[in-house]
Amino acid sequence: MSAAEATRGRGRPRDPRTDEAILRAALELFTEHGHAGTSIEAIARRAGVGKLTVYRRWGSKDELIAAAVESARGEIPNPGTDDLDGMSYAEISQVIVDALPVSARTLAEPGYRAMLAQVFGSCVTHPGLMAAFWQNHILPRRRTVHLALSRAVDEGVLPPETDIEALIDMTVGAVLYRLLRSDPPDADELLEYLRAVYRQAGMIPRQ
Amino acid sequence: MSAAEATRGRGRPRDPRTDEAILRAALELFTEHGHAGTSIEAIARRAGVGKLTVYRRWGSKDELIAAAVESARGEIPNPGTDDLDGMSYAEISQVIVDALPVSARTLAEPGYRAMLAQVFGSCVTHPGLMAAFWQNHILPRRRTVHLALSRAVDEGVLPPETDIEALIDMTVGAVLYRLLRSDPPDADELLEYLRAVYRQAGMIPRQ
Repeated sequence: MSAAEATRGRGRPRDPRTDEAILRAALELFTEHGHAGTSIEAIARRAGVGKLTVYRRWGSKDELIAAAVESARGEIPNPGTDDLDGMSYAEISQVIVDALPVSARTLAEPGYRAMLAQVFGSCVTHPGLMAAFWQNHILPRRRTVHLALSRAVDEGVLPPETDIEALIDMTVGAVLYRLLRSDPPDADELLEYLRAVYRQAGMIPRQ
Repeated sequence: MSAAEATRGRGRPRDPRTDEAILRAALELFTEHGHAGTSIEAIARRAGVGKLTVYRRWGSKDELIAAAVESARGEIPNPGTDDLDGMSYAEISQVIVDALPVSARTLAEPGYRAMLAQVFGSCVTHPGLMAAFWQNHILPRRRTVHLALSRAVDEGVLPPETDIEALIDMTVGAVLYRLLRSDPPDADELLEYLRAVYRQAGMIPRQ
């Protein structure tokens, strides 16, 4: 593994349990104390590893916290553009429908909401975290969603004038806004909410 | 003025400049230091008034900060449901179009974005602020928007199956999500963005 690879965190992990322990420690500390209150040193200590072990895997605190935030998605599916090869939008739409229950359960966790508040709350004071999260995790996901929605437009499921980028923001933004309201939904309420938003977006069928 | 009225902040203000000074001080301190770092005492000191003068107007720190956050909207129009009396949706839609430039200028201010990050960032650690903001300021505005969009459905501008509450969340949520990204838009970019989202929502005409 070259030094450059290590810096980018692309090296093959020696022991995946070490990665998991570091990500879990980072997620816990960040959720509880925010960006300013979380240090690589404290993360390493909680994970039971040395600082160098952390730095060998992630180039910066921002990249590590971004990866920890991403890891909080747990079992929510995260398909790449390749996974859409040969799929019709009807099939893609069924994948979306099938993923909604696990998404609702995960996103409705109080810890997930607390983490989300820390992420967006730190976007001005610590812009590097949102930049790393956007670049490393959100952007690849958006490319997949964009491809899926282009297919919906091509197949006439969505109208030709659809502004796909706006529609992605509207869908993600609605869920973000709902989660950060003062009356957070439980998993069942959030599942109903996700269905309502995806239907209103035209991304899943009305019935 | 009864004690109950004073507690709810409904008393007639003795001097509107005092209110303005308090709101401005609250907004500055909250934007810079967040909820935890802002005290009524510090707000009163910065505004050059006594603590009692503050408490006579706002029943709690949450209500005061919520009012300060609301005041940051500046000249963005804030019509009530009565203002829609006798208006067709075409007329309402024109009001929305006309309000977009001032909305874009206000929301694209770096200070507005920093404040927004503090508001949403504190929704878990200090839930009373979001609750007060929602109850006192967002909910009345949503009632107006809901009435406007009901009219759009009645007049066939939006399809009958429109989920109005979801559509409101999608529109507000998209703007929130766009503002809290790592690459904040300037006023011109945000104006284009607002137009794109409102068009995609079907709330303003495509051209």
